[in-house]
Amino acid sequence: MSTNDTELSRHSRDESCHPSADPSIVCFPENREDIERILQTARQQRVPVTTFGAGSGLEGGSIPVSGGIVLNTERMKQIIDFSPEDFTVTVAPGVTRKELNHFINKHGLMFPIDPGADASIGGMVSTNASGTTAVRYGSMRDQILDLEVVLADGRVIHTGSRAKKSSSGYNLNGLLAGSEGTLGIVSEITLQLHGIPEHTVSARCTFPTPKACAEAARLVLLHDIPVMRMELVDAVSVCEVNRFGDYHFPEKHSLFLEFAGERKAVVHQAGLVEELMADAGCGDWETAEDSKERALLWKARHELSYAYRHTVGKEVLGGDVCVPISHLPDLIDYSRELAERAGMKAGIFGHVGDGNFHTLIVYDPKISEEQEAAEQILEKLTIRAIEVGGTCTGEHGVGIGKRKFQKKEHGPALEVMKEMKGLLDPEGLLNPGKIFE
Amino acid sequence: MSTNDTELSRHSRDESCHPSADPSIVCFPENREDIERILQTARQQRVPVTTFGAGSGLEGGSIPVSGGIVLNTERMKQIIDFSPEDFTVTVAPGVTRKELNHFINKHGLMFPIDPGADASIGGMVSTNASGTTAVRYGSMRDQILDLEVVLADGRVIHTGSRAKKSSSGYNLNGLLAGSEGTLGIVSEITLQLHGIPEHTVSARCTFPTPKACAEAARLVLLHDIPVMRMELVDAVSVCEVNRFGDYHFPEKHSLFLEFAGERKAVVHQAGLVEELMADAGCGDWETAEDSKERALLWKARHELSYAYRHTVGKEVLGGDVCVPISHLPDLIDYSRELAERAGMKAGIFGHVGDGNFHTLIVYDPKISEEQEAAEQILEKLTIRAIEVGGTCTGEHGVGIGKRKFQKKEHGPALEVMKEMKGLLDPEGLLNPGKIFE
Repeated sequence: MSTNDTELSRHSRDESCHPSADPSIVCFPENREDIERILQTARQQRVPVTTFGAGSGLEGGSIPVSGGIVLNTERMKQIIDFSPEDFTVTVAPGVTRKELNHFINKHGLMFPIDPGADASIGGMVSTNASGTTAVRYGSMRDQILDLEVVLADGRVIHTGSRAKKSSSGYNLNGLLAGSEGTLGIVSEITLQLHGIPEHTVSARCTFPTPKACAEAARLVLLHDIPVMRMELVDAVSVCEVNRFGDYHFPEKHSLFLEFAGERKAVVHQAGLVEELMADAGCGDWETAEDSKERALLWKARHELSYAYRHTVGKEVLGGDVCVPISHLPDLIDYSRELAERAGMKAGIFGHVGDGNFHTLIVYDPKISEEQEAAEQILEKLTIRAIEVGGTCTGEHGVGIGKRKFQKKEHGPALEVMKEMKGLLDPEGLLNPGKIFE
Repeated sequence: MSTNDTELSRHSRDESCHPSADPSIVCFPENREDIERILQTARQQRVPVTTFGAGSGLEGGSIPVSGGIVLNTERMKQIIDFSPEDFTVTVAPGVTRKELNHFINKHGLMFPIDPGADASIGGMVSTNASGTTAVRYGSMRDQILDLEVVLADGRVIHTGSRAKKSSSGYNLNGLLAGSEGTLGIVSEITLQLHGIPEHTVSARCTFPTPKACAEAARLVLLHDIPVMRMELVDAVSVCEVNRFGDYHFPEKHSLFLEFAGERKAVVHQAGLVEELMADAGCGDWETAEDSKERALLWKARHELSYAYRHTVGKEVLGGDVCVPISHLPDLIDYSRELAERAGMKAGIFGHVGDGNFHTLIVYDPKISEEQEAAEQILEKLTIRAIEVGGTCTGEHGVGIGKRKFQKKEHGPALEVMKEMKGLLDPEGLLNPGKIFE
């Protein structure tokens, strides 16, 4: 454990611009028994415990807003069990997704969930993370077979089994996934893995408007083509990427696609989509089969969020709505309209195959009107998303930033969620101040 | 509502051989308000409410073991919202899966979950049903975007939204799905739909042992071939099917497969699997592309359970274990060995792509030793399944039959489940006597 100022400060924030808050102490458990001991102390001293993974969160979920203990999982890196014949692996929560893939890729297997950042698996469970491949594999929740969880009162439970499906008991896997460390602390995660596809083809093309990109993405879905990734990156964001990484993508509203699977099927799919996109009026269609070239393309996409966040003297506020796909084109249009009307610089990009997109508003933190305007844009956008049957967060989690939308989105179900929190953590020790206001 | 003896008797049992129990009254709500009123009466009179769908359950989940009210959803047949452009539909719980498909198929969409029986969608939610297509589409839980649920205390909540994914609040969709009407009564279900594949090819082949069938199925999974269905039917069961339906399948241990998708891809997949099966030593490989012939093949597979259940003077006891795929061949072997050692007739068949299989033991209900022997076989099999990391029920639910395995399978998590039941239904009005002993 550490009470060193540098450590306290490192654990006071995440990648968002939510206000930081120092913990009193940072603990580095190495195994489940350590977690149990930390929780025991927390109960005795009545101090809160906030779990911290890789610190790559975007909604302040791991900021210790009430101080107390931060439980950092970075020393919990064990691969506890690996069963390639079952396509399953059991890991400790501190293993990052890249570390996991490094370990399993040589066996022909992969863990596909890819939120961009090299997040810890525990952190990804806590926010129900997803990212560019969710259009094919679903979100984090869909990969979880079992969690070992230490509850606030010290009980240790397993939420599932190693079976691929089950109708036994209540489904606690899904409940714990996405609960942001407010219901228990995850000490072990058993995941479903997937085979590495034989062949991959990447493609990109451009459209006159972001709305046209979203409509083209819908066409692909309607034709039931099993894309691996399908990302919208608007012109402003392409400029950011080019500037940040010295790329030379055409600075227009773009769709980035990936097809993966058996070689013949993939080439055929890419051909079908090329035709569909041409019919939809795309320009600049380019494909890449070479793995270096492909990696470059997705590296660029992943750097996007960092490109925005690392503009000197500027901060960004981000939206993460997810809506039924038929509402996506209009909502993207609305997002752009709100930013233009307020005279703010905004980038729009995201996982259009899922109806999930991010709006990043760039503002000057020294000008309070700019921050307010950015907040208002995202608030209006989020409310509209909920009104059309969508959600305030497709993948980042609620944390601090989306608490104010919980009542509107969940209605009376929010009371049930609070009752569950009360049941499993009656003293409010686990990550207080998150999800609920 | 009705207190007619015939109605009481019809609602006293399901398709299993669990002991029947008459309710005091059967109610037929037509909408959510009716459900609310029935629950209000139940609270006032302190009588239990057991929900009843199509009566096709296999673990006694809808048997009103404590009497009281049976709430039959057969008059709740509304298609409340259909959004083909979003691939979603919202239905009342009494709509059956065939009725739903009849409605949506003409729009090029399908609801793939296929447990064999023409179950109600509400019933399928309650048990987290799955069936032959789970290897491709997952189970019922994976199709649910939102549920409207009337809670025991009268509150009405929505558990999700119409977005394809969400990280907002706690995941109540997954918790309610599979809770067998013990946590609330579902009044509306919003489902994810899927496109009807362009082309379908069915295939079957035979192997010398059931274990060899399971090993061949594992090969298909290891090659990451996206089969639509992959079913084991052992020789005893093929005989039953032939006898029951006047079919002429080779009376050997068989794998039944289906491939579906874009035409070229499907033909290619079927060719790949034919090679794999030949390498694994299969015989009698046959394919069917003609839709009539295919329908016949799957009709035969679906009649299997009925074939066993409708043997004059005999009853059947069924197992429904699901295990990590590497343990499947041995467990199937163990199942056969247990039946042979006891001198009982047993059929083994199931969804081997998920590690889920059914063992049906045929016994004479007039000979108590036979029933005891059948129960012992299934108990040993289920315990072994849990010990190798599997589950006591892959798709039928706990109901009455699997209660005794809950402690072994869930350990201390069972207490958490009971606490959740206590939270949402403190007076135990909703389907008492199910899941928990």
